[in-house]
Amino acid sequence: MSIRIGILGYGNLGKGVESAVRQNPDMELAAVFTRRSPESVSIQTPGVPVLHVEQLEHMKSQIDVLILCGGSATDLPEQTPGYAASYNVVDSFDTHARIPEHFAAVDAAARAGGKVGIISCGWDPGMFSLNRLYANAILPEGQDYTFWGKGVSQGHSDAIRRIKGVADARQYTIPVPAALEAVREGRNPELNTRQKHTRECFVVAEEGADKVRIEQEIKTMPNYFADYDTTVHFITAKEMARDHSGLPHGGCVIRTGRTGIEKDHGHVIEYRLNLDSNPEFTGAVLTACARAAFRMNQEGMTGGKTILDIPPSYLSAKSGEELRRQLL
Amino acid sequence: MSIRIGILGYGNLGKGVESAVRQNPDMELAAVFTRRSPESVSIQTPGVPVLHVEQLEHMKSQIDVLILCGGSATDLPEQTPGYAASYNVVDSFDTHARIPEHFAAVDAAARAGGKVGIISCGWDPGMFSLNRLYANAILPEGQDYTFWGKGVSQGHSDAIRRIKGVADARQYTIPVPAALEAVREGRNPELNTRQKHTRECFVVAEEGADKVRIEQEIKTMPNYFADYDTTVHFITAKEMARDHSGLPHGGCVIRTGRTGIEKDHGHVIEYRLNLDSNPEFTGAVLTACARAAFRMNQEGMTGGKTILDIPPSYLSAKSGEELRRQLL
Repeated sequence: MSIRIGILGYGNLGKGVESAVRQNPDMELAAVFTRRSPESVSIQTPGVPVLHVEQLEHMKSQIDVLILCGGSATDLPEQTPGYAASYNVVDSFDTHARIPEHFAAVDAAARAGGKVGIISCGWDPGMFSLNRLYANAILPEGQDYTFWGKGVSQGHSDAIRRIKGVADARQYTIPVPAALEAVREGRNPELNTRQKHTRECFVVAEEGADKVRIEQEIKTMPNYFADYDTTVHFITAKEMARDHSGLPHGGCVIRTGRTGIEKDHGHVIEYRLNLDSNPEFTGAVLTACARAAFRMNQEGMTGGKTILDIPPSYLSAKSGEELRRQLL
Repeated sequence: MSIRIGILGYGNLGKGVESAVRQNPDMELAAVFTRRSPESVSIQTPGVPVLHVEQLEHMKSQIDVLILCGGSATDLPEQTPGYAASYNVVDSFDTHARIPEHFAAVDAAARAGGKVGIISCGWDPGMFSLNRLYANAILPEGQDYTFWGKGVSQGHSDAIRRIKGVADARQYTIPVPAALEAVREGRNPELNTRQKHTRECFVVAEEGADKVRIEQEIKTMPNYFADYDTTVHFITAKEMARDHSGLPHGGCVIRTGRTGIEKDHGHVIEYRLNLDSNPEFTGAVLTACARAAFRMNQEGMTGGKTILDIPPSYLSAKSGEELRRQLL
């Protein structure tokens, strides 16, 4: 029997989950739920219904895990606790500072309903967090580094788009090669914000807009750009469509640490992702976590979880015996 | 209350565990057990007894987890199942082909005794296996690659030492840079043994030994060297001691895969280790797994486990709340 997946929200992430479900033979897509008019949403999986979100009230017996594909700012803080009492749920909540309160809300709802709710599954938070945990457990004395990119930051792209005179924008976060190299060599550099990443912006200006002012506004924008070395390129809408339509991302988590009675041996642990499509990869992580949510709940577990709590084997469709034989 | 660790076997790995225990404030070393005469073994932790292995019959109430630091060829197949009924045990059994039978034996003993037995904890098997599992669960359609090195292979070094006329030897396994690059770029190369790794050997010949014959015997040795491009350097005992006394190792596990309805997006997941001391790093992994064994058993779990079964948070001394706040 397949694990029946529901998707709530059909943006880039929802589409990523849809294609990931198709790559996992032990799963099937049961329905896509949307706040829009269902007739206006056309999905890629033949024969699967698109339903209005309100239909979730009546679908409990037809969905094993509901994957929430909304945004962290306003959708997930409401949706994940809202549905965790009725469904096993998985989300990619990524507002790091608010994870404790989000976890508490999802945990309470999931416990009350006897369901499992896994939050913050993606790559950061998600796979990067997991690698920070493993590396810290193995090397208690050491230093953590996270580099993001090269990749598109949607938040920074949006921030540029809000500037007057900007028609479109794409921002790439790029690790500083020398910083990365120093970390990988175990030199334990102290790095400030500017020394770790640069920001490269591609901007389509509206006709007649003041490009000098736009560039100045970008480079001095607090939090987003002021603390970084930022370069701005003005391009045409055609160039934007041709060269910057993808959503690549990635980065690495590195921990360096020392062992030995005299601490005379250094070690470097690095986990690195190079992703052509951020939403499809995030969707793939969510989908593997949905399998774990289903299995944990089948075994009687309930409550809030994160990827840090999931026995790794629960993410895989293979049996313990197969895993030991093939992957261990 | 600290987790009380026992170490069985005080070679390089046992010493690695000893120093790792010292880096984990929630643990203490209770005793080191040896098959040698205890008086002949001097350890680095003041006040901790060295006992004969037979004393393990009487130490059940004083040890929470016994870490088995023997070899996979003859020690562990006997010791791990032998002690798993009386102690929570952790080992680094690394004969991949024999893992299923070793697991079965440990599982049966641990279940019978109500204990937890975690086998094959190190980096390969161990952390590399874990990363293969995660990457396969996320990217079901893709290809796995493992590269080892640059590092000392003890098995290959030993094989050279068995050749007539060889006084000492050290063998380094080295990934082929072009192969690594092709994999990282997502080109999915088909690589045979020779294309993935080269082998570099440093040999101290006995006086008057026939170096031409020794080099020939190394390069044509089946399984160990015949399938590789191997270089042999003859050096002095002094050079060996000066330049090759360490036991560095490492390597990387890479999975490349594609996502999307049309499979048009490629992804690369890489986990990389660069280790100054193979036994100290392996000892550090064993020690983190000992914490998990203790906690799993405290919660009532029993039987054979591998790192693939351990909820990641059990490896860490931090609480779930701390982990979510600090690492997620």
